Amino acid sequence: MVIMGIDPGFAIMGFGIINYRGNRFYTMEYGVLKTPASMLLPERLLHIEKGIVALIDKYKPEAISVEDLYFNTNTKTAIKVGQGRGVALLCAARAGIPVYEYTPLQVKQGVTGYGRADKSQVQYMVKVLLGLSETPKPDDAADALAIAICHAHSCTNLYKTRKIY
Amino acid sequence: MVIMGIDPGFAIMGFGIINYRGNRFYTMEYGVLKTPASMLLPERLLHIEKGIVALIDKYKPEAISVEDLYFNTNTKTAIKVGQGRGVALLCAARAGIPVYEYTPLQVKQGVTGYGRADKSQVQYMVKVLLGLSETPKPDDAADALAIAICHAHSCTNLYKTRKIY
Repeated sequence: MVIMGIDPGFAIMGFGIINYRGNRFYTMEYGVLKTPASMLLPERLLHIEKGIVALIDKYKPEAISVEDLYFNTNTKTAIKVGQGRGVALLCAARAGIPVYEYTPLQVKQGVTGYGRADKSQVQYMVKVLLGLSETPKPDDAADALAIAICHAHSCTNLYKTRKIY
Repeated sequence: MVIMGIDPGFAIMGFGIINYRGNRFYTMEYGVLKTPASMLLPERLLHIEKGIVALIDKYKPEAISVEDLYFNTNTKTAIKVGQGRGVALLCAARAGIPVYEYTPLQVKQGVTGYGRADKSQVQYMVKVLLGLSETPKPDDAADALAIAICHAHSCTNLYKTRKIY
């Protein structure tokens, strides 16, 4: 099962595409979509759209997994991140790919088995589970891989899944 | 000049399309795009996209005017509204229509001449300027018309315009 994890953002959006077969993970691609601050807002959203559409076309994920974003930040940041997230989810909807949302706690639990794990523990487990030689960089890409892994584990009924599309 | 004002939202997105010619306003259409809470998140974003694209195709606005959304709300609401706003701005970008942002203060000033005007004063001026027999309903549609009027007035160099696309 090909799963695309997305760590929603505006200036930087992390993505991680994995294939989960027979309890094994295969890493297909991970990285970030960056939109420079010098770009105008609608252009940045177009840029995000093109990037996500290209990844969907290339890997044809069967599920898209995103983090629930109700973190403790200021409204200005939340609206910006929301704009990027909205575009990413729209791309998923247009492609008819089901979208799943997980809270940060669920992601930590799904990856490390421990909901209070810190960032470095999550990144370490991402590296181990995916059999990578080093921790994926930047953090946004590692986070997106973690979100994808969380969904893979949820599919095996270890955790409750909330399908939102 | 055909201007489309958008009052960004998620459950309800207001729109107002006006034509401003020779210091006169002509109301073309106003209303709201509603997405029921029973609809899944990505479907709601698709619904917003379809609605905005249909309005752009029908009226071919030369400018899209939206409110700057850094209001004082909670993060959860801000992310939701941001998602809807992102989709609306993406549609504008794809159609190559310039987008302009105004703060609530600029909208009030642009419509009533007074930055501290209250909601009813703004709605009254929208009705008068557009020559409507009654105040446009719902409020989201009236707000969208106000944002469009604000841009029309800005274009005549009464106020500074911030073109973001």
